[in-house]
Amino acid sequence: MTYCVAIRLESGLIFASDSRTNAGVDNIATFQKMYTFEIAGRLRLVMMTSGNLATSQSVASLLDLKSRQDGPGSLRRIGSLYDAAVLVGQTLREVIARDGGGDGQVDLGASFLLGGQLAGERPRLFNIYPQGNFIEATADTPCFQIGETKYGKPILDRVLNYRSSLEEAIRCALISLDSTMRSNLSVALPIHLMWHHNDDFTPRAPLRIGEDDRYFRELRAAWGRGIKETFAALPATPWSEELA
Amino acid sequence: MTYCVAIRLESGLIFASDSRTNAGVDNIATFQKMYTFEIAGRLRLVMMTSGNLATSQSVASLLDLKSRQDGPGSLRRIGSLYDAAVLVGQTLREVIARDGGGDGQVDLGASFLLGGQLAGERPRLFNIYPQGNFIEATADTPCFQIGETKYGKPILDRVLNYRSSLEEAIRCALISLDSTMRSNLSVALPIHLMWHHNDDFTPRAPLRIGEDDRYFRELRAAWGRGIKETFAALPATPWSEELA
Repeated sequence: MTYCVAIRLESGLIFASDSRTNAGVDNIATFQKMYTFEIAGRLRLVMMTSGNLATSQSVASLLDLKSRQDGPGSLRRIGSLYDAAVLVGQTLREVIARDGGGDGQVDLGASFLLGGQLAGERPRLFNIYPQGNFIEATADTPCFQIGETKYGKPILDRVLNYRSSLEEAIRCALISLDSTMRSNLSVALPIHLMWHHNDDFTPRAPLRIGEDDRYFRELRAAWGRGIKETFAALPATPWSEELA
Repeated sequence: MTYCVAIRLESGLIFASDSRTNAGVDNIATFQKMYTFEIAGRLRLVMMTSGNLATSQSVASLLDLKSRQDGPGSLRRIGSLYDAAVLVGQTLREVIARDGGGDGQVDLGASFLLGGQLAGERPRLFNIYPQGNFIEATADTPCFQIGETKYGKPILDRVLNYRSSLEEAIRCALISLDSTMRSNLSVALPIHLMWHHNDDFTPRAPLRIGEDDRYFRELRAAWGRGIKETFAALPATPWSEELA
């Protein structure tokens, strides 16, 4: 499985993904699910994937290939982030059509979160479905998740909104990933983390947060401690005497 | 959907269930999913259901009918809680065999959590699958969930264990339900809550916790406040300057 979360904030975008893939419990591997494409001063694109790994890797490879050749389907030629989402959707359909001739027993579907900014346009964030169509994040619904989404949703629902800072959104995304990893073995470190400030096109590689990352260890320890303290301080039930 | 959680503790058992059923978003109703069967001084049984409502209601009705008549299949005759789990499983298979003659388009499956105590035996808790077979909770794995289980699992994983008190387990179950209800519209109030102290066979009806329940309102407010405070007090990221 996989867990990826992306958030469209007033001040920019943040992206976080885990790295575990599995085909059964005895076939577990580590793959980065975050891809970036940048043109200094003009474009930043971040794509995260879940679903069939062969499909999502092929989509990423084909997009990369076409963009290097700068032929049709090149990300260098997009006039809007919307065009990039259309390209991802088209490439996804191509890959599924190409590889889908088998017995139909294997689900080739993949989902994508694609966000970033093209100079002259506002930052945008898209959730691309296995069918290749997509929706866009708004101030009302600034957060998209793909993969194993449920364990990490309550914390997003409780503390996050469009006006949260990048710093808050990163902490929230990391805790959302931590909660998911604790409750589900198919989601695991390292985490890849990326952010984009509105109108800042300085190239930047995703941060890789592994087991030995000091900040993440501090963060999860502080969160675990806070949850336990909050829990211990909850009001006693009206049935305390009967329960004792 | 549904969310039910039951916990087998050193000192007893607790049970909590929501009340929402839905067949599509325009067919939402309230049904209690918790059933109790008691013989003063000798037996307490608590059963919670998820899945197909026609199936689970029929299972409960048939068990009730047979137990009133005290014929074969009566819960009055069980020599162990294990027998009760077998009876529920058998009744479930009977109902599915009886009602399963249709076009196979509808999933008739239902899951059950069944727990309680028969005098002379320790308290026990079973998770009964749609096939009618079942597993039993142990000190290592004291907690079972059925229905929409993922949103409410992180809090159980973090604060609950076999040695938790009944009071702690009730608070934890209520927060687990609250988190689920906030993130998923198919799980909703009222909650039904039941507990069993080891060897206490005083008959007791489930508590019904609705929107106007003062304690539940206090609890969810305190939890929400604590989460927000814990979140606000988390250590700043090492990238704070760059993010500001």
